[in-house]
Amino acid sequence: MNQTNSPKSLGMSVKASPGDFDLESYMHDRTKAVNQALDHFLPRANTNPPTLHEAMRYSLFAGGKRLRPALCLAAAEACAGSVDDAMPLACAVECIHTYSLIHDDLPAMDDDDYRRGKLTNHKVFGEGIAILAGDALLTQAFEIAAQSKGWTRYSHQKIFRELSHAAGSLQLIAGQVADLEGEGKKIPASELKYIHERKTSALLCCAVRLGGMSANCAAARLRALTDFGYNVGLAFQVIDDILDVTQTSEHLGKTAGKDQAARKATYPSIVGMKRSRQIAKELTGRAFAALRPFKGKALALEALAHHLLERSR
Amino acid sequence: MNQTNSPKSLGMSVKASPGDFDLESYMHDRTKAVNQALDHFLPRANTNPPTLHEAMRYSLFAGGKRLRPALCLAAAEACAGSVDDAMPLACAVECIHTYSLIHDDLPAMDDDDYRRGKLTNHKVFGEGIAILAGDALLTQAFEIAAQSKGWTRYSHQKIFRELSHAAGSLQLIAGQVADLEGEGKKIPASELKYIHERKTSALLCCAVRLGGMSANCAAARLRALTDFGYNVGLAFQVIDDILDVTQTSEHLGKTAGKDQAARKATYPSIVGMKRSRQIAKELTGRAFAALRPFKGKALALEALAHHLLERSR
Repeated sequence: MNQTNSPKSLGMSVKASPGDFDLESYMHDRTKAVNQALDHFLPRANTNPPTLHEAMRYSLFAGGKRLRPALCLAAAEACAGSVDDAMPLACAVECIHTYSLIHDDLPAMDDDDYRRGKLTNHKVFGEGIAILAGDALLTQAFEIAAQSKGWTRYSHQKIFRELSHAAGSLQLIAGQVADLEGEGKKIPASELKYIHERKTSALLCCAVRLGGMSANCAAARLRALTDFGYNVGLAFQVIDDILDVTQTSEHLGKTAGKDQAARKATYPSIVGMKRSRQIAKELTGRAFAALRPFKGKALALEALAHHLLERSR
Repeated sequence: MNQTNSPKSLGMSVKASPGDFDLESYMHDRTKAVNQALDHFLPRANTNPPTLHEAMRYSLFAGGKRLRPALCLAAAEACAGSVDDAMPLACAVECIHTYSLIHDDLPAMDDDDYRRGKLTNHKVFGEGIAILAGDALLTQAFEIAAQSKGWTRYSHQKIFRELSHAAGSLQLIAGQVADLEGEGKKIPASELKYIHERKTSALLCCAVRLGGMSANCAAARLRALTDFGYNVGLAFQVIDDILDVTQTSEHLGKTAGKDQAARKATYPSIVGMKRSRQIAKELTGRAFAALRPFKGKALALEALAHHLLERSR
């Protein structure tokens, strides 16, 4: 969160960081609360079979930024909801995100040895356990989501549809498949957008929406949050593409230049660096605009969107 | 279902096949209905990305016996419920079963080339897509379950807890991990029972329970179904172990003798063939006893339990 000290900041701010909002301390508090909740929801590491639960916890507590849970909680707060009501959904999304990283890193997929500066799950526990730990985190997500409150307006049925759709074969997994199949191919910008929408934006947008739903928000608010989540999600991935080119592996905590090495299409490779930065800025601008109905009561969401644009890792 | 013509029947019947009940025609009808429902719930094969949806459908329609869905529907009928109400849950369980087979067959796990007489998913689509197709089927299961009806007594929340628990790190996946870790080791019968309870009985029992829940059954009935499902599930796996030794690959449609080759503990290898047959018979007897409260109105469940004991594949 330390924007001012971050090396090689992208320098793309669309507006000054929301005045008085202290994002660093906000994220510190939220990350702590999310980590405690995840620890509560997950079986202990010594639960039978211990290898499996150790592997699940290894990746879940490997220093993730908790961006999706933070967005979920911030959306709930923007709708005058409580952090407690949103927490199971925030944790469910983080379990899904973590499972997708474990499986993406496998030799049969992106074949990555490092993630967040630590060895990837399969490098520590072996491929078999890594696959099963991913499966278990995905399943755990639904078990945790079942512990959410549920409202008349947003029943458990709706919440489950939301989560399973975002994580399913038309969204998150579709993105990963398209990404896998696009390797080494020249693809048009429209196809890259299709991948980014699914691989990143779908679950991120889902996190924001679930936050609103946990606060029993009105339909217009949910539409605004959807618009925000979609644009922030896309901006996030465009910036990820940029950072993969401009930053070192050490700084990112994962292999930099990986996209180029795998001959993956990225925004910089297709539209160039200058236009990529412009696109990220435009998307973030749209995300800010989506928050207008909240009339200044979505400060955390604004600060998060701002930070995502400015981040250097 | 063709018991009389099946070669090398295990000859372990605990009672005569339920008199007038025509299991063959029952299974024919139910299999057809389940296949139609699965076809309805799954995205078309040409849905983007087509490789993924083809891979999901390849394994889902690879000639599975639809045992778990049949048990789910039969449990619903035993509780005077409708096939329609139970169908989404029956299909959800089948998706979870199929995903678990795809992942179990991967090189990092059991490394199997054939399943149900056809090439395994990763042999056809490659490991990356096979992992993702499994992930997608698991996720799809929850999306389908969200289309079930839900009652005051058995809310969607309860249904999701049921399904995610049975498929999760303490049950189905725990069984697979213990199975993987037990390879080549001498394990006691108690550990083997632990594996079988989780790897097979948990989801099978869940299928039966969800059938009862879809029929809004009373608590006593649900207990009876649980008892039935648990014992039938264990019996099923003991018999699987026996068949792996006594039948040919061609007859089973998968690699026979696989357990021995992988130095996996099985009932025959730990307690011997004679005692294994006795155990299967005892478990089936307990399953029959559990059905007493249904006073002869659980004919399909009885016939299914009987068939599972008598089957030769």
